Amino acid sequence: MPISLGELAQRFSCELIGDPAIIVDGVAPLSNASSSSLSFLSSSAFKRQLPSTQAAAVILCADDAPDCPTAVLVHENPYACYARIAAFIQPRPVYAAGVHATAVVADTASIASTAHVAANAVVEERAVIGENSYIGPGTVVGPDCVIGDDCRLNANVTFVRSVSTGDRCVFNSGSVIGADGFGNAMTDEGWVSVPQFGGVRIGNDVEVGASTTIDCGAIEDTVIENGVRLDNQIQIGHNVHIGEHTAMASSVAVAGSAHIGKRCLLAGMVGVAGHITICDDVIINGKGMVSKSITEPGGYASNFPVEGVRTWNRRVAMFRRIDKLLERVSKLEKDNK
Amino acid sequence: MPISLGELAQRFSCELIGDPAIIVDGVAPLSNASSSSLSFLSSSAFKRQLPSTQAAAVILCADDAPDCPTAVLVHENPYACYARIAAFIQPRPVYAAGVHATAVVADTASIASTAHVAANAVVEERAVIGENSYIGPGTVVGPDCVIGDDCRLNANVTFVRSVSTGDRCVFNSGSVIGADGFGNAMTDEGWVSVPQFGGVRIGNDVEVGASTTIDCGAIEDTVIENGVRLDNQIQIGHNVHIGEHTAMASSVAVAGSAHIGKRCLLAGMVGVAGHITICDDVIINGKGMVSKSITEPGGYASNFPVEGVRTWNRRVAMFRRIDKLLERVSKLEKDNK
Amino acid sequence: MPISLGELAQRFSCELIGDPAIIVDGVAPLSNASSSSLSFLSSSAFKRQLPSTQAAAVILCADDAPDCPTAVLVHENPYACYARIAAFIQPRPVYAAGVHATAVVADTASIASTAHVAANAVVEERAVIGENSYIGPGTVVGPDCVIGDDCRLNANVTFVRSVSTGDRCVFNSGSVIGADGFGNAMTDEGWVSVPQFGGVRIGNDVEVGASTTIDCGAIEDTVIENGVRLDNQIQIGHNVHIGEHTAMASSVAVAGSAHIGKRCLLAGMVGVAGHITICDDVIINGKGMVSKSITEPGGYASNFPVEGVRTWNRRVAMFRRIDKLLERVSKLEKDNK
Repeated sequence: MPISLGELAQRFSCELIGDPAIIVDGVAPLSNASSSSLSFLSSSAFKRQLPSTQAAAVILCADDAPDCPTAVLVHENPYACYARIAAFIQPRPVYAAGVHATAVVADTASIASTAHVAANAVVEERAVIGENSYIGPGTVVGPDCVIGDDCRLNANVTFVRSVSTGDRCVFNSGSVIGADGFGNAMTDEGWVSVPQFGGVRIGNDVEVGASTTIDCGAIEDTVIENGVRLDNQIQIGHNVHIGEHTAMASSVAVAGSAHIGKRCLLAGMVGVAGHITICDDVIINGKGMVSKSITEPGGYASNFPVEGVRTWNRRVAMFRRIDKLLERVSKLEKDNK
Repeated sequence: MPISLGELAQRFSCELIGDPAIIVDGVAPLSNASSSSLSFLSSSAFKRQLPSTQAAAVILCADDAPDCPTAVLVHENPYACYARIAAFIQPRPVYAAGVHATAVVADTASIASTAHVAANAVVEERAVIGENSYIGPGTVVGPDCVIGDDCRLNANVTFVRSVSTGDRCVFNSGSVIGADGFGNAMTDEGWVSVPQFGGVRIGNDVEVGASTTIDCGAIEDTVIENGVRLDNQIQIGHNVHIGEHTAMASSVAVAGSAHIGKRCLLAGMVGVAGHITICDDVIINGKGMVSKSITEPGGYASNFPVEGVRTWNRRVAMFRRIDKLLERVSKLEKDNK
Repeated sequence: MPISLGELAQRFSCELIGDPAIIVDGVAPLSNASSSSLSFLSSSAFKRQLPSTQAAAVILCADDAPDCPTAVLVHENPYACYARIAAFIQPRPVYAAGVHATAVVADTASIASTAHVAANAVVEERAVIGENSYIGPGTVVGPDCVIGDDCRLNANVTFVRSVSTGDRCVFNSGSVIGADGFGNAMTDEGWVSVPQFGGVRIGNDVEVGASTTIDCGAIEDTVIENGVRLDNQIQIGHNVHIGEHTAMASSVAVAGSAHIGKRCLLAGMVGVAGHITICDDVIINGKGMVSKSITEPGGYASNFPVEGVRTWNRRVAMFRRIDKLLERVSKLEKDNK
């Protein structure tokens, strides 16, 4: 959608330095932009690309404006401003309302007249789909699921049962929400499955990545608060509670009944043990393992970066003799007395 | 289903202390139970909730009975007893026998008359579905798969080919059983795929979590014995053998041809190398890496819990100079002689 | 397909030692082969099974030929030779060309006349399916996806949008290619999603495992070069670039904008941080974490193998006092002066 810089500046509360009549019709990275593209600078890592950009205009913060050879839209949060403008210039496709002929909808389900249910989707008993929501091809919305307005369940998503969402949520393909939690009681004859009766309760503006799984609670619900962002391949166990605006990168695993605060950031491959609490505003670095509750905001880590394999193996061998080293130091101390 | 405590005590071999005429019609946690709910106490972590519970009755072990203000069902394994009673009071929905009009079933497939095949499911050549088994919406049962009686394949499960199961197995949504194993031979022109001819052989009472994958064997079968429990997001490579009643928490990865014994417990994010053997009754703590065979039962670990990021980084730096430290100690010892 | 050793030797450039008229009709492991089976020896681990094999013939390298009691096909790369012969003797099933009556194909999609689109598959707007390609049951090929010739998308695969592939690619069940990358900008009101406009560009002969996810690029494409092999449960973030013939074992996670070279091998559960570069010919051992760029070919590691849990915990406790140990050694050195 072609639009002038003047109109963008007004709509998105930016300061424009340059000609308001310049028209842009798409977005592009600094290094690869054409003269009708809008670009952005949000990280100093890309600042060296700024002087040579061919973009029509660049979204950036005030400090970077003098170094830009083109028109600029100044904003204190250039990345967020870019995100909003990009969604405006190149909006998502709109799907016509209606249920595809090959979709199967239970008699007791309720689908808003503005919702789109795609080919070969299945909507089961007592499920409710809100206004303007999109149910992709092959997606299954199981019994007693309630989906809010303006949600998007992409192709081949599974809502197993008893999942409720707020509005404007996104579930990427392959995600499975509401499967039974992992509850097993050991007996002399082997495991007995513990029935899982809870559901999953999801707030507004939650986004869930591809192949991510969020299990139903055992008796009470698993809860995902407003604005949570989960990347791909994440596992959220039963009865977990995730606070507002917490974000997790890919391949994180959170065990059952963990309670994670608001505005936390879990990097890739972090593991969180069951039945612990992480307070608000905690950052866990990649591959960290949280095995006890965290009560102080701040950054935490427990990973080792790779080294050459021989060097690494030698260090591990030394680590495995660390008790001998301690003994030797103790002996030295004793001899020195 | 409303039922009296007297009848429950009799059916599930508990000792009842209290009025046998009391009726319960559901289950609830101790802290949140109503006067018609049955609750349970299986962990000392919840014992402080016992005195104030509003439950109609509580399942617990003999030692805890005196502290309970309500009727009690005494059992030596309260959690397993709860699991069995809960499944009895709130049974799973029963699906009517039959094949949905939108399901596609190959002519050569055989489906028991009591089985349920849901909307948009696909059952391919020579597949067999046993009595009372449930094939969920969107689920694909590939060629030459044989599913036992009373099994449940939830929505959007994929049995790729040549998978056989015993009875009473459960496969959660998104699980993929029987994909080709990862076999590649390097040549000067790049990788050549090694054809995978084996299948997957699964025993009775096996349960598999959402998005978990179990690959076909290369020539012989991948084998999952009776009573194995796998949580979500687990990867089981080709030719792996998992012994009876072994359980794995989420996000475990087991490489090809590993042989894991009976009654093992692998916590979340454990990795097991290929071609190794783990004996019976081994417990691996979360994030542990098993790179060599284990021949002694017991607990094993190799994880580090998170610490404040500055503290952690300082320690890692010290670890990277551990060889210098050893040298310094050796020099001190020499000087002291 | 029964075939003589003489014909195999000629077709696959092996040296035959034995009777060229011997007929084989299948493949089997050394320990379990019948007199009409072809077997192979590619690893010294199995050499002890050679003298007692009942196979009709064994593919092996020249050095092992004297120890084999049966006919042999000598090849310098027995595993690759086996792979090629096995695919020839027991070829994959051929699917009849055509679109199943229950598949849903958009008017603007283009499907080669020799392609097979299975039951309940969905092919969306402007998608293109090449010659002899197979689209499995329940698989969704989203808008603007272009699939080359001789590709195989097994059951319940999802190509979300804007994915292009070369020829002879394989995508296993549950894989999700082309989901939106994980881009979020923080604001005072919470996360704003950054629109993802790029696609995924995949070369020839690429194979992708079950439940593996490859996200679309943010503005430019995510790129997977020719001959890449990805096992199951892998996550590839947006704008990642993977060089030719690189292979990754299961459960690897590669964060956004990482650039991985050619012929690299990443073992299971490796994590790669975003925005870094790994040069060609790098091997990362299982569970390694790559948090900085690697510029030298070779092997790298950062894992700890499990030990008995008490031993391990004692060592971790010592590690957490490593600064005290350093202080003690420094004091000893000072006292010794």
